[in-house]
Amino acid sequence: MNSIATITLNPAVDLTVRADHFTSNRVNRGQTMQMDAGGKGINVASFLADYGLQSAATGFLGQANIDIFEQLFARKQIADHFVRLPGATRTSIKIVDEANQQTTDINMPGLQPTQENIQQLVQRIEQMMESCTWFILAGNLPPGVPADIYARLIKQLKSHHKKTVLDTSQIALQAGVAAEPTIIKPNIDELEQLLGQKCPDEHSIEQAARQLLQGDIQLVVISMGAQGAMFVDRQTSLIASALKVAVKSTVGAGDAMVAGLIAGLTDGLSLADCARLATAFSAGTITQIGPHLPARQVLQEYAQCVTIRAPQQAQPATGKA
Amino acid sequence: MNSIATITLNPAVDLTVRADHFTSNRVNRGQTMQMDAGGKGINVASFLADYGLQSAATGFLGQANIDIFEQLFARKQIADHFVRLPGATRTSIKIVDEANQQTTDINMPGLQPTQENIQQLVQRIEQMMESCTWFILAGNLPPGVPADIYARLIKQLKSHHKKTVLDTSQIALQAGVAAEPTIIKPNIDELEQLLGQKCPDEHSIEQAARQLLQGDIQLVVISMGAQGAMFVDRQTSLIASALKVAVKSTVGAGDAMVAGLIAGLTDGLSLADCARLATAFSAGTITQIGPHLPARQVLQEYAQCVTIRAPQQAQPATGKA
Repeated sequence: MNSIATITLNPAVDLTVRADHFTSNRVNRGQTMQMDAGGKGINVASFLADYGLQSAATGFLGQANIDIFEQLFARKQIADHFVRLPGATRTSIKIVDEANQQTTDINMPGLQPTQENIQQLVQRIEQMMESCTWFILAGNLPPGVPADIYARLIKQLKSHHKKTVLDTSQIALQAGVAAEPTIIKPNIDELEQLLGQKCPDEHSIEQAARQLLQGDIQLVVISMGAQGAMFVDRQTSLIASALKVAVKSTVGAGDAMVAGLIAGLTDGLSLADCARLATAFSAGTITQIGPHLPARQVLQEYAQCVTIRAPQQAQPATGKA
Repeated sequence: MNSIATITLNPAVDLTVRADHFTSNRVNRGQTMQMDAGGKGINVASFLADYGLQSAATGFLGQANIDIFEQLFARKQIADHFVRLPGATRTSIKIVDEANQQTTDINMPGLQPTQENIQQLVQRIEQMMESCTWFILAGNLPPGVPADIYARLIKQLKSHHKKTVLDTSQIALQAGVAAEPTIIKPNIDELEQLLGQKCPDEHSIEQAARQLLQGDIQLVVISMGAQGAMFVDRQTSLIASALKVAVKSTVGAGDAMVAGLIAGLTDGLSLADCARLATAFSAGTITQIGPHLPARQVLQEYAQCVTIRAPQQAQPATGKA
């Protein structure tokens, strides 16, 4: 039993609009528009499917625009355990100006689940525990959901000896980390917020990540954008360099990293090879619009191109200026 | 037989997003989002339905997102004569920043009909001529459609003694006006482009409108935004003042004016009363998001508030400075 579950409480339909020379307070011409089923956990499930790994997905989805999600689940053979809510799942708009290399986002608050919906979700997760080992809790929280919901779910999952990955931000991250998930994947901003300290260089990032390796937390992955990602467990610290690829859309690049990491871990790869695969997944999705990956062979070629190195150590203190 | 048909060659799903303090090249929070079936002729049909007038609508619609249109047609009892195309009808995005009173639009090119699709459209219009007297041709043209398509349709309709309203812009307007539709409704920019001359004041606008009253053209309506609209026929020139209402969305305000005008004309109202009703329709839709009108009684109250006056005459020439 090695199956993977993803939990997405606040999914979105991702509407990506290409509009070169986009300017606010004006009538603009768009070139192309694409709608994709989105949401961080759904993206992870979609990436895993492209790599040939089956997964199950749960969370909340609106009934009114369910088609685009059900089509994705059917096409990628993702087991659909979502709780349906009345109304439409929110749409997230991303306006991509390739001419000026600028991106403008508009994110909506999302549908508010009732107490009963939350109870239904807990029941779905209990059912999924029968077949799944890994649970990936990803994304921000919809309105009306208690900030400690991830913490509560992680505790419940741990009491059944399940492994958990938490990829969220702000209060949900703070509360979730206290429940000690197996893996956390903050970016540098989130890391700084978690610890209330600045991390201006690789050494301080590594030290901060090490501070988080408490109790049941086994691995801290810090995504650093164009600088790649740092992977810190109790034995090792390493940095996987980002690959230089032609950028189509950076939406889901972090989710692809989570998917690649879990794909590597369930395959029993070393931490360095997991980092290579995670970086390859991330580069792979950047070359496309939507939560999709290139062929497995392309990903493996990408993985071989990833450089792994140790983080830079502390700069020797300089004399007074 | 007094039935009304609208023709929309390039409809759109209107996606209206409220995002206060919207800024490009940044991650913004949106407050609300609404999707409406849109397109100028479809809007006209929708406004007529709200006023209690049945109409038939044709043009091109994509099969992939047909639901939102079919739901509107069913709800408003609009007879659906649209030719279906493969793919999705384009989405037009309107980002409304109420805090800064700014609006940002992104318009897409639209689905390209084939020659066969255009032939199907012509056949639909032939069928509609059996029951309809008025034909409203509205909106811009999708890619791949000849610029003189409105001119050709107007000629065909006129050969069957049908009355036509043309509400479009640029080359499609230029070519369409040459076919002498019964009514045209340019705004000041479009009027200036049509005649290749500046219209800096009411007198010059009136003179320009009069120049267009050639052959079969019976009425020229110039929409002037917050300044109201000028109605010019062979007997009269008048200006209907715009009503001051709480603005929710100005999308479709011009289409509402066309609908109100036709509602008045088919009711046999005088030009002044038509102008009042057209202005009331326009004010009525501004108070809502989507192509909808308030109750008939509210519209009639609005109409009574509209001031009708003659355009200002030419300023006496001033001496040298």
